[in-house]
Amino acid sequence: MADNTEVIVNPKEDIVDPWTVQSSSDKGVDYDRLIEKFGSMRINDDLIKRMEKVTGKPVHHFIRRGIFFSHRELEMILEKYEQKQPFYLYTGRGPSSEAMHLGHLVPFICTQWLQETFDVPLVIQMTDDEKFLWKEEIKDPDQTYRLAYENAKDIIACGFDINKTFIFSDIDFIGGCPEFYKNICRIEKKVTFNQVKAIFGFNESNNIGQVSFPAIQAAPSFSSSFPKIFGGHTRVPCLIPCAIDQDPYFRMTRDVAPKLKFLKPALLHSVFFPALQGAQGKMSSSDPTSSIFLTDTQKEIEDKINKYAYSGGGATLEEHRKKGGDLDTDVSYQYLRFFLEDDVKLERLGKEYKTGSLTTGDLKKELIAVLQKLVGGHQEKRQRVTEDIVKQYMKPRPLNYKF
Amino acid sequence: MADNTEVIVNPKEDIVDPWTVQSSSDKGVDYDRLIEKFGSMRINDDLIKRMEKVTGKPVHHFIRRGIFFSHRELEMILEKYEQKQPFYLYTGRGPSSEAMHLGHLVPFICTQWLQETFDVPLVIQMTDDEKFLWKEEIKDPDQTYRLAYENAKDIIACGFDINKTFIFSDIDFIGGCPEFYKNICRIEKKVTFNQVKAIFGFNESNNIGQVSFPAIQAAPSFSSSFPKIFGGHTRVPCLIPCAIDQDPYFRMTRDVAPKLKFLKPALLHSVFFPALQGAQGKMSSSDPTSSIFLTDTQKEIEDKINKYAYSGGGATLEEHRKKGGDLDTDVSYQYLRFFLEDDVKLERLGKEYKTGSLTTGDLKKELIAVLQKLVGGHQEKRQRVTEDIVKQYMKPRPLNYKF
Repeated sequence: MADNTEVIVNPKEDIVDPWTVQSSSDKGVDYDRLIEKFGSMRINDDLIKRMEKVTGKPVHHFIRRGIFFSHRELEMILEKYEQKQPFYLYTGRGPSSEAMHLGHLVPFICTQWLQETFDVPLVIQMTDDEKFLWKEEIKDPDQTYRLAYENAKDIIACGFDINKTFIFSDIDFIGGCPEFYKNICRIEKKVTFNQVKAIFGFNESNNIGQVSFPAIQAAPSFSSSFPKIFGGHTRVPCLIPCAIDQDPYFRMTRDVAPKLKFLKPALLHSVFFPALQGAQGKMSSSDPTSSIFLTDTQKEIEDKINKYAYSGGGATLEEHRKKGGDLDTDVSYQYLRFFLEDDVKLERLGKEYKTGSLTTGDLKKELIAVLQKLVGGHQEKRQRVTEDIVKQYMKPRPLNYKF
Repeated sequence: MADNTEVIVNPKEDIVDPWTVQSSSDKGVDYDRLIEKFGSMRINDDLIKRMEKVTGKPVHHFIRRGIFFSHRELEMILEKYEQKQPFYLYTGRGPSSEAMHLGHLVPFICTQWLQETFDVPLVIQMTDDEKFLWKEEIKDPDQTYRLAYENAKDIIACGFDINKTFIFSDIDFIGGCPEFYKNICRIEKKVTFNQVKAIFGFNESNNIGQVSFPAIQAAPSFSSSFPKIFGGHTRVPCLIPCAIDQDPYFRMTRDVAPKLKFLKPALLHSVFFPALQGAQGKMSSSDPTSSIFLTDTQKEIEDKINKYAYSGGGATLEEHRKKGGDLDTDVSYQYLRFFLEDDVKLERLGKEYKTGSLTTGDLKKELIAVLQKLVGGHQEKRQRVTEDIVKQYMKPRPLNYKF
């Protein structure tokens, strides 16, 4: 190799940022490598035991099965909880499409479990400004603003405590809370274009709204952004459950926090929810064949799984019976890891599929039943979310919590 | 000259942007060159005659004397007025210091005259966010937010119609009007980092709030930013009186407007108000010896003029009597051009100073009397501006105007 070759391009490096998740492996993103690269911590058995000890209940299967697999300063949050000191949860959604899909449910299911388990307040940011700024096909912020309210119904259907949850559209809330906008300005002043270029890969062709948006996603990490909700308590620590592609925003936030004498938010990272076609990509609304939507009919779910779900089984039935299936690449098995709560049954299905006694068709049948129940149940709950209920969740107000 | 020399640096080029005004000539900025560079139009005698014809009154001496000297599409505004169609005025202030100075008064005096003459509504933007983002020594947006309210008193003292004027702090209003924030997003999406780099000279070390700020100064040019005030009329044309260093913001705004199907704002540009030390620089709050503040006592005004006002007179009395003074560089004469309303007296003083029959001391005495009256009168009017009156001007509300 020539002496002047300094940049070694690794063709197998995964691309993971808030806009792209692309793995070169059919087993999906190398999360060990990602933890190392991002500098976060693996959630290990000791931490899980500690969570179970302080809460007095088993962790959610998402955590047990490594779906939420990485964190930053989760110990600090557990300590606060042990000392009976308050913390709050913050998560979000970019409302770019009418229908949310299964992957979008993952952080909300975990967040709902965390809220119930720790009995804490929660703020949910709908980044209608971001989605307008990024999506070429979205011509006006009124479109994403409307979607924020539509998507809020799906989020509410996940079962958040109406007395402890504030959902807000950025367009509403930046245009409704001077303290929030002040924090955005405070953060903006501490971050240069050079820094967002390094963190997010922005370049000179990015529009100026995109350039400053990271400050808007950072601001809800600081309780001083919500004077009404937190009664003016400006140092309530924050825990953010999110998919790991959002980590760059919060690395930036954690870097800025001490400069503003704010607390660094803690994080809980999930893996990506794979596309039907396999774990190289994540499920994406912009490719409908990759996604099971929360609006899909029972029939559509059945058809999509049968038609598109990538199989890790043998090429022929004979080969499958002989060699068995590959659990790591089989999308149906991967989805069951997310949504089949019964550990014993999951283990049995895995074992049988691996040895070849269970076929891809059998496994898909199991998955179809699980997803039909999940999505059907979600649709029922969503139908009960009236406009009035949405208004209640989205009204800035003191939450029912003692700080 | 070598063939590869492509960049010709003109050492005599003035620096004029929203943050710096620096001329290499003691006669100040070359405004003809600036008009050519910015691509605006000179206000000529025909246009002045037309203004006087449509309004039925003489133009303000600022316009007559070329203090407001350049424009963009002023004819369009006059046409609308002739057709009895509405327009509105928009101007602003960056609240970076407690005390405003004489130079800050200039756009407001002109704007007040325009409001009175055309009987139109007016919005005044206090860019408390901008000043926080730019000034290293300002540690928190609460400081500039407070200054916005303080400075509003000085602005109100200029005599704006309380029923037709809305003054707003960005922090309040971005945090108070979703429609305003939506327009900011719409503008941001149409402007890249590359463009603000070219227009404003930004580089990668600018903070991300600075990078997106131009969209915030642009937004009030579009009446759709003020649904309450303009009753939802989204295509009311806008006229912006401002010092010409603000033109880059509005060149950008005019470039973006048609892409959003908004109207381009018209502009009326003033020259800079010279520093006491001379026309190479403009009066600046950050150099107190360069400025007469609106809070200065009668004695301070006298002392500052006598001590600092740059003289265009002869080196000795004898020389002055023989050769006379230079009106172009003499700061006292220049200030009298701004604030001595009596045309006949101004002409006489100019003639006598130029021929040497009037000394620098005599001219300063005249100026001191004019400024003591102006500043003293301003202070009296400002004292009558109560907190309650400020609140009235700064409340988003329908203005008393028929659209």
